[in-house]
Amino acid sequence: MQSKLPHVGTTIFTVMTRMAQQHGAINLSQGFPDFDCPAYLRERVVHHLNNRKNQYAPMTGVDQLRAEIANKVNTLYHCQVDMDQEITVTSGATEALYDAIQAFVSDGDEVIMFDPAYDSYDPSVRLAGGIPVHLPLTRPDYCIDWQLLQDSISDKTRMIIINSPHNPCGSVLTSADLDQLAELIRDRKIIVLSDEVYEHMVFDGGIHQSVLRHAELREKSIAVFSFGKTYHATGWKAAYCVAPENIMSEFRKIHQFVTFTSTSFIQYAIADFMRDCPEHHEDLPAFYQKKRDTFNELISASRLTFTPSAGTYFQCVDYSEVSDLPDREFVDWLCQEKKLAAIPLSPFYENAPADSRMIRFCFCKDDSTLKQAADIICQL
Amino acid sequence: MQSKLPHVGTTIFTVMTRMAQQHGAINLSQGFPDFDCPAYLRERVVHHLNNRKNQYAPMTGVDQLRAEIANKVNTLYHCQVDMDQEITVTSGATEALYDAIQAFVSDGDEVIMFDPAYDSYDPSVRLAGGIPVHLPLTRPDYCIDWQLLQDSISDKTRMIIINSPHNPCGSVLTSADLDQLAELIRDRKIIVLSDEVYEHMVFDGGIHQSVLRHAELREKSIAVFSFGKTYHATGWKAAYCVAPENIMSEFRKIHQFVTFTSTSFIQYAIADFMRDCPEHHEDLPAFYQKKRDTFNELISASRLTFTPSAGTYFQCVDYSEVSDLPDREFVDWLCQEKKLAAIPLSPFYENAPADSRMIRFCFCKDDSTLKQAADIICQL
Ligand SMILES: CSCCC(=O)C(=O)O
Ligand SMILES: CSCCC(=O)C(=O)O
Repeated sequence: MQSKLPHVGTTIFTVMTRMAQQHGAINLSQGFPDFDCPAYLRERVVHHLNNRKNQYAPMTGVDQLRAEIANKVNTLYHCQVDMDQEITVTSGATEALYDAIQAFVSDGDEVIMFDPAYDSYDPSVRLAGGIPVHLPLTRPDYCIDWQLLQDSISDKTRMIIINSPHNPCGSVLTSADLDQLAELIRDRKIIVLSDEVYEHMVFDGGIHQSVLRHAELREKSIAVFSFGKTYHATGWKAAYCVAPENIMSEFRKIHQFVTFTSTSFIQYAIADFMRDCPEHHEDLPAFYQKKRDTFNELISASRLTFTPSAGTYFQCVDYSEVSDLPDREFVDWLCQEKKLAAIPLSPFYENAPADSRMIRFCFCKDDSTLKQAADIICQL
Repeated sequence: MQSKLPHVGTTIFTVMTRMAQQHGAINLSQGFPDFDCPAYLRERVVHHLNNRKNQYAPMTGVDQLRAEIANKVNTLYHCQVDMDQEITVTSGATEALYDAIQAFVSDGDEVIMFDPAYDSYDPSVRLAGGIPVHLPLTRPDYCIDWQLLQDSISDKTRMIIINSPHNPCGSVLTSADLDQLAELIRDRKIIVLSDEVYEHMVFDGGIHQSVLRHAELREKSIAVFSFGKTYHATGWKAAYCVAPENIMSEFRKIHQFVTFTSTSFIQYAIADFMRDCPEHHEDLPAFYQKKRDTFNELISASRLTFTPSAGTYFQCVDYSEVSDLPDREFVDWLCQEKKLAAIPLSPFYENAPADSRMIRFCFCKDDSTLKQAADIICQL
């Protein structure tokens, strides 16, 4: 069978979670909590499920939810958005990323992304007929090389994909970074796709630099956010994106034929929760910073080396003192022999650095899970 | 802003449901029930929601659900399917249709579809770089013109999209039709995309001719089914598709980057319901046939003319004795002036017949709703 994506296999997240299950390993690979979503949120789900919210939601998302999103974005990012024209609810952030790329990338268009890059970006660009242009983030701090970006922008560049807080690296963009980006694309027909699904996981007093805070970028960006990550419910596949009306109207043309809409009773429940419990996301940076610190403290006695993540619920570590294996083989060994699942970094690169000995752990887990994992790590 | 779909506006379903709300009209336009999904199904949803099924489901769908689907397909269509390799759960049937087209249609490939055709097919083909080839169904019985199909198949034909029971027309394919199709595409590299979301709504003792029943077609088809339609829960966005392994492996490469997976606790709940309540879908043909008969009896005194639907929960009617307006204008008038919303047929055509005076009513409504609608219809 001829393939549209001949070089693509099953995503590494599926591969590693499946392997963890087969080997009874502790799963710090795919990014999801092993604790539950808030009880009150589930209560609201039951309420709307049992109150006739079981038929199609509007294509753009239910009104109450878009109103809460508009309110939140205004409060957090001082950004006025029109809930009718500028917000769309999607079936997960992956769908929003896919639709955005499909809406704006045509045959021969170049899309710049920074490696390591989330593994859906590149195939989504190819499926739209675009040409992925992979630029490496600097090492070891995983920042954007602005000179390299400037040199790589061409008349064919249609989109630049940024991701802060950064999965898998845990780095974050600063407001100076956003200024740089705005300057480089000024007067060009370039759209910024800003993957901000970890918006509430920024640590050590930093603040999340959403493109929505930046007046100039805001006008040419699609910003993608995730309810699943913020509300500890990755399996609900609930997300949204924000963009100016001229961009959003094209985005919706795609969305309406890709999934049309997403689960209605869940949307009503999240709207209630956002209205009644804004402290949930306000408390999230401290909640996850504590997890990061717990995990990092626990593994500080190990032979792994690392810089603490500035954001996300991931911690990347260098295992070169433990093993010479390439990361893809190392995680297999770690899972099968040591019963601990992690994510290798090489699948996130077009050309992974040959000397890279980095893997990613997910620390959005109960402290007892982190302790068990650390016990294994400290014996490597 | 440059557009990938310059000629596409907001889908007619969204337009008409919104108009119905604005004008307080009875909504027989977009296809969704105004009664609720089964109480036991909702009970199972609550159970899994409150039992930790809130994180990512496997990319292909949860095991229990795929096992129930395999069992159902075997029982109903005498088709053995491998639940691991041949079934994928999707975020609604629209996603399955979209992914299938994106997986197999490349630049310049022709895709044959029959008008009137569901409105996502054509744009999905265009987004994949394909060329939609629209063939009219015969009138007034809305069957496939096999000679025309034969003449239209070329070396560029990559896919044929069929839909039985047919939305919006309510016609159904026979086993002789499937034989014809199999013969026409024998020894060609053509994939059949079979939209069977109304599989349980076939009336008057007919049986649903799934491609899965047909040994030859089964090997070259992707069949798409809908939980939302079968379980009166269109807002849950739960569906699945079945295809042989060589086709399904390519389908999944797309699915994993479009939505990755769909809502986990809903999948577990549907699996329980399928196991415990198979009578639900067994009773569905009679349930909907009764609604069709009730509605048709109620409007038999009107000036509308129609042939009773053989399947789906839609009834198309000819309004030419009531009005000379084109259908798009007629439904606006009907909604705004008479407070009854319907779907015009012209948006489902590349070239709508100029003399067509047909609209579609959805009869999956409480009898009281059908009665109210019929009162309006009988006064037209
Ligand atoms: C789509 S599953 C991947 C979850 C995730 O975002 C991650 O682990 O990085
Ligand atoms: C995606 S909303 C359309 C629902 C439907 O299938 C119909 O009304 O035909």
